[in-house]
Amino acid sequence: MSFSPSFDNLCKALEALPGIGPKSARRLAYHLVHTNRQAAAHLSAMLDQALRCLCHCSLCNTFTDSDLCPLCASSARERSLLCVVETPADQSILESTGAFHGLYYVLMGRLAPLEGIKADVLPIERLLERAAIDEVKEIILATNLTAEGEATAFYLSQRLLPLKKKITRIAKGMPFGGELEYVDAGTAAQALLERRSFV
Amino acid sequence: MSFSPSFDNLCKALEALPGIGPKSARRLAYHLVHTNRQAAAHLSAMLDQALRCLCHCSLCNTFTDSDLCPLCASSARERSLLCVVETPADQSILESTGAFHGLYYVLMGRLAPLEGIKADVLPIERLLERAAIDEVKEIILATNLTAEGEATAFYLSQRLLPLKKKITRIAKGMPFGGELEYVDAGTAAQALLERRSFV
Repeated sequence: MSFSPSFDNLCKALEALPGIGPKSARRLAYHLVHTNRQAAAHLSAMLDQALRCLCHCSLCNTFTDSDLCPLCASSARERSLLCVVETPADQSILESTGAFHGLYYVLMGRLAPLEGIKADVLPIERLLERAAIDEVKEIILATNLTAEGEATAFYLSQRLLPLKKKITRIAKGMPFGGELEYVDAGTAAQALLERRSFV
Repeated sequence: MSFSPSFDNLCKALEALPGIGPKSARRLAYHLVHTNRQAAAHLSAMLDQALRCLCHCSLCNTFTDSDLCPLCASSARERSLLCVVETPADQSILESTGAFHGLYYVLMGRLAPLEGIKADVLPIERLLERAAIDEVKEIILATNLTAEGEATAFYLSQRLLPLKKKITRIAKGMPFGGELEYVDAGTAAQALLERRSFV
């Protein structure tokens, strides 16, 4: 390593982040302490601010700096639709489509038994309470189409069944602009199985 | 973006780092404020420490927390050899080979006129002073083999010429384990041009 313990410590702290290896960490550290020290001070301040201010919406569990997020506080949303997503990032992708006007519930994760993330780690009881409210008519399971996301959706559907509400899952099939030649066999098969009448 | 200004601010601060785009920044921010808040607090502390403690060796200009780096302070190094590198990372690669026992001079960059890094930005006057010392017999130019590194080496050689000392450049040729079939034409040509007698 280098001849500066403080530089090496910074490298190690950066290396602890997901997707950052030793070489990237050193490049980032070099940037932060040499090329752009302002960015370093700013990043440190923003980390402190986030640790201090960030909390979860008491209704939908997404990141927010206040008790209720703007969506849950808004009167313009359809309160009969509840869309369950894994992370705030997934939520903002769906929001950006403009195709959904209901409310969300953010799990902040998915079931991943191999990583020790079992049902008791996720805020599922709170989701059940939230979904049980009368005004909620349909629960849309929008966890990812990965193995873990699918397992989570299945588990949630089983837990939500007793509420006797409409439970739906986001559609599987060919992506927009997709070509059969380049799509994986699983997707092609799914697109075939879940075909819909053309008119 | 999200519904938390402090989360968005953290994302933007991370996005300002080289090689980190909006999606990576959001993933990192999510990790820092949700999965591993300890890592966030630690990173913030290490940034502050580095900004406070880190300085440059008064002799070789590398990162260090004291006035002189351990290499420059060591009596075991050959003080007649001075190896000029671009960054502390390059220095530690060369150190890790165990093939060099001289001293270094770290430019903390290379000439890159397109990025506004001209000769007056780099500590070249200090290098000239350092190289002028009597005990220095050979100056090894070990800037990268990129266009910018080559230009920097050429510029330095011109500036160092008046000192009338031995000036050398690290060897160019086939990399260890390299196969001619897979090497670029420039490298192959260089390896041919700079061929050496076999025994």
